Amino acid sequence: MASSSPEFAPAAAETNGSVRIRRLEISDRERGFLTLLSQLSACPELTASEFAACFADLAALGDDHVILVAEDPAAAPEKRILATGCLFVERKFLHGVGKVGHVEDVVVDAAARGRGLGLRVVRRLVEIAKEAGCYKVILDCTPELRAYYAKCGFVEKGVQMAIYF
Amino acid sequence: MASSSPEFAPAAAETNGSVRIRRLEISDRERGFLTLLSQLSACPELTASEFAACFADLAALGDDHVILVAEDPAAAPEKRILATGCLFVERKFLHGVGKVGHVEDVVVDAAARGRGLGLRVVRRLVEIAKEAGCYKVILDCTPELRAYYAKCGFVEKGVQMAIYF
Repeated sequence: MASSSPEFAPAAAETNGSVRIRRLEISDRERGFLTLLSQLSACPELTASEFAACFADLAALGDDHVILVAEDPAAAPEKRILATGCLFVERKFLHGVGKVGHVEDVVVDAAARGRGLGLRVVRRLVEIAKEAGCYKVILDCTPELRAYYAKCGFVEKGVQMAIYF
Repeated sequence: MASSSPEFAPAAAETNGSVRIRRLEISDRERGFLTLLSQLSACPELTASEFAACFADLAALGDDHVILVAEDPAAAPEKRILATGCLFVERKFLHGVGKVGHVEDVVVDAAARGRGLGLRVVRRLVEIAKEAGCYKVILDCTPELRAYYAKCGFVEKGVQMAIYF
């Protein structure tokens, strides 16, 4: 089901100014990736081996699970990851064995907002979903973020419901 | 990442009255599964080999991808699948390598609505998500279905945004 895709390898990362958009690397634990995620939701620190295990589980999904990061190589080492977002691809019987892209866990460092980094991440995730053959890409957000995601082409489609255990 | 779980094997299907809730079987192509899905969204007929290939891809995800069906053994063979719903489990770095359950593709045959079959399917999917250790389970629906999913314990959380390619 999963396959590797050389165009998303670190060597071919998108660069635009000093900040580049690339796939998550296992060494991003030391570049502030989890600290950044903790600005979105609870994200306890993980040991190097816990991080590596999760990284390997997700990497095993290949292009069915893509985490992008925006890295500022000029920043202090532990603060280089300024934005992130994730895409995972769901397979369905619907739509002739169709694929749906789900965008999750988009966050921009509070000190780096207003620079368009989140939009660059999300637009790239949408491109990846399209290239993967998804017939749609969806995400859930708070009502306040409707206009933000509209800049990437998203339109409101429904309501998100949840149960927290 | 995926593992098998004997409690969801067909032999241990939930029964309640004549209709039983169980996991999708490859032979459900002949019991009206795709015809039922077509009441939800576009679902072209699949050949037996296309169906088998999709079934195998999804089955390879083990308990990270569960499709339940409600079967009426008293119905005509090609009309036995009266309801269905799907759960897939997403892994995250967030929440200490947390899991989120996504409920998708819930549909009840138009002639079988009002019998609580969809609710039975959804409640079982929620139980499976909880048993799998998910910290939450989410779904997207139209505003008209808020009250329906509230019967299963869901509360409105946000808005769903989409891009159709």
